Amino acid sequence: MKKWINPPKQEWGSLLARPGLDHTNLLQTVSNVLDAVKQEGDIALKRFTSQFDKVVLNKFYLDETELADLAKQVPENLKQAIEIAANNIRFFHEKQCSPVEKIETMPGVICWRKSVGIDKVGLYIPGGSAPLFSTILMLGIPAAIAGCKEIVLCTPPDQNGTVNPAIAFAALTVGIRKVYTIGGVQAIAAMAFGTSTIPAVYKIFGPGNQYVTLAKQLVQQYGVAIDMPAGPSEVCVLADNTAIPEFIAADLLSQAEHGADSQVLLVTTEESIVDKVIGCLSDQLATLPRADIARAALLNSKAIVVDTIENALAVVNEYAAEHLIIACHDAEAIASNITNAGSVFLGNYSPESIGDYASGTNHTLPTNGFARAYSGVSVDSFVKKITYQQLSETGLRHIGKAVMEMAKAEGLEAHSKAVELRIKN
Amino acid sequence: MKKWINPPKQEWGSLLARPGLDHTNLLQTVSNVLDAVKQEGDIALKRFTSQFDKVVLNKFYLDETELADLAKQVPENLKQAIEIAANNIRFFHEKQCSPVEKIETMPGVICWRKSVGIDKVGLYIPGGSAPLFSTILMLGIPAAIAGCKEIVLCTPPDQNGTVNPAIAFAALTVGIRKVYTIGGVQAIAAMAFGTSTIPAVYKIFGPGNQYVTLAKQLVQQYGVAIDMPAGPSEVCVLADNTAIPEFIAADLLSQAEHGADSQVLLVTTEESIVDKVIGCLSDQLATLPRADIARAALLNSKAIVVDTIENALAVVNEYAAEHLIIACHDAEAIASNITNAGSVFLGNYSPESIGDYASGTNHTLPTNGFARAYSGVSVDSFVKKITYQQLSETGLRHIGKAVMEMAKAEGLEAHSKAVELRIKN
Repeated sequence: MKKWINPPKQEWGSLLARPGLDHTNLLQTVSNVLDAVKQEGDIALKRFTSQFDKVVLNKFYLDETELADLAKQVPENLKQAIEIAANNIRFFHEKQCSPVEKIETMPGVICWRKSVGIDKVGLYIPGGSAPLFSTILMLGIPAAIAGCKEIVLCTPPDQNGTVNPAIAFAALTVGIRKVYTIGGVQAIAAMAFGTSTIPAVYKIFGPGNQYVTLAKQLVQQYGVAIDMPAGPSEVCVLADNTAIPEFIAADLLSQAEHGADSQVLLVTTEESIVDKVIGCLSDQLATLPRADIARAALLNSKAIVVDTIENALAVVNEYAAEHLIIACHDAEAIASNITNAGSVFLGNYSPESIGDYASGTNHTLPTNGFARAYSGVSVDSFVKKITYQQLSETGLRHIGKAVMEMAKAEGLEAHSKAVELRIKN
Repeated sequence: MKKWINPPKQEWGSLLARPGLDHTNLLQTVSNVLDAVKQEGDIALKRFTSQFDKVVLNKFYLDETELADLAKQVPENLKQAIEIAANNIRFFHEKQCSPVEKIETMPGVICWRKSVGIDKVGLYIPGGSAPLFSTILMLGIPAAIAGCKEIVLCTPPDQNGTVNPAIAFAALTVGIRKVYTIGGVQAIAAMAFGTSTIPAVYKIFGPGNQYVTLAKQLVQQYGVAIDMPAGPSEVCVLADNTAIPEFIAADLLSQAEHGADSQVLLVTTEESIVDKVIGCLSDQLATLPRADIARAALLNSKAIVVDTIENALAVVNEYAAEHLIIACHDAEAIASNITNAGSVFLGNYSPESIGDYASGTNHTLPTNGFARAYSGVSVDSFVKKITYQQLSETGLRHIGKAVMEMAKAEGLEAHSKAVELRIKN
């Protein structure tokens, strides 16, 4: 972890810049897989699964009975943990639904907005070394609350053509009764274009490696929506002199262990804390299973010391972290000045990992500075908010003149006529 | 307008398909302008404005005094109309703000979500034959409600380097005190990359021709967000035997006059109404100033007759229209079955044009079938919804075990440690 003391403002931009994400070298590979699935459907899925996942599938899904059988293997403690997390996530996300409110903007002019679930959504859950069953909760629960009619879940098969039991248990927990055992770019292609087995969807959610990320970007060209652009995961800790170095080090490591490209940032008004954190990092790394990955990530991590909390806030807002931990005395007052962040963790007892799993907030969050303009996933991500208007004859009379005046001034005579005809009628 | 009677379901897909939008032939032109502005800034803006708008600008904006002087030229009737529209839009959009609600998902685990305005947003307002001042209301009002700190408005200059007085008046009405007189791709580039004169923004909104549309798509690669993907404007009218053919024809024309590529669709259970509508179209076209444009659009328009209202609804939901007019007896009951649409107009007295200007709903809506997955612009479009969590020591004790269990099962030991350390402390 490198240390900067009071870097001048003109240097913040380069100091806080993320590594460039240039995927052009993957473009040909990813495009080829997309095109093949688009043209050949299930045949291509079988071929790519054999090629990339090293397993020959004769069917591409697990049905409810198979999922239930797998789920039985999940230890009782983990089942309970998943259920606690699911309950909190459900409780928090259910509060995001707003009732329809009819608004009379003028006498006889009634307008309203209604959230309608996106009919068909696709959830991509990566496989590999860590089975990300927690992401099934984070995507499946808001999709169910939103009322999405068809929820397609794709995840890579293991070498037996099946999935981790916790994946099966989490899917059943959120009400998903069929899991498609297709991974990587071919899964994104299947959900975008549809095959005989896998239904096409209107919007695709979920994390993935750089191939999956690029595939999601590319299928947008075919009119398929995606949750948000992606980049490596990040944490920023904002610490004052009340922060506990041991806790900060643990939080930085729980980001760093995600991958060598994880972004880790410490911003503090207290120079002495940086050296203490560096010491704690070294101690904690000693016993960490994924220490090699964490060490690689820490090579690019930065500690920035500034003179005032105002400057610390300015740095943090400029960075726009996916996860922001405010380890400060008056965390709530400081949080009220945060304008750019995905999710914010207040005080010494709110480590990022509680939000990753179980506090109730969503862990699918904007990385790479996208928190300046994007929100994390919520029930909003799974609905369209359709607007409605209903006018009585009186309502049209009230509003008609203004509409005709504006339409004519914009040179759109037929717009005006549509009102005029009705008023004359 | 061509007529289809009970087309079989397997033909709906091709019948309802939009024309392909292939902008690849514009790619080089648009990329060149983007690159030049990125590299040369204001110098390129001046060059392209001279080349495309045929005016040499020595400054690229109108300040508050200049806008106020221009605004004086707006006729009183139009000023009043704009103010009525602005009030309705403001009233409807203000209701979209939700108060912060703190939710205790478990004892001592408090989560909440707060909407924070995107710091810097850019609004693009096309110029040309029709000065779209109404779009300034539709974008500027929710931006102000959202609390966006910097609202950059770009619009092409006329041959005197200035803008239509109604543009100036609308800008001042929504609280915008500076208008940048830059149009086209160069405006999108300026807002995406920033120049000495024009500030860079995090998200760009607004309609435009196919060059502008492509430019918005391309700047996303640089991390700039956009409101939504765009296509030609559309209306679909769903009519039963209570609909009034004269009104339907007027509504179809008010879409058709937008451009030759406008999409116009009539879906009805009543075959006789189609011929009556075709007759009314012919009558109304006779006196329409933009009749040539409307005639061109009508060449591609379709009337689809189906046997039941259920089938009509299925067609309409499959089409996913930007604007949907329900000219049916029980419009509200029918509307409750609409799953895909941008904005819905109920009954015989709710023409699309009232939503285009003044009912209070937003007119920036998803076209091209994007209504299946996207919402129209609202206050939501101008905010990020940041999540927060604050745990007490007790809260962490309650939730800690579940988090540690899940983290370990995902192979993320440091995530577990961040909790364990705190509980032991």
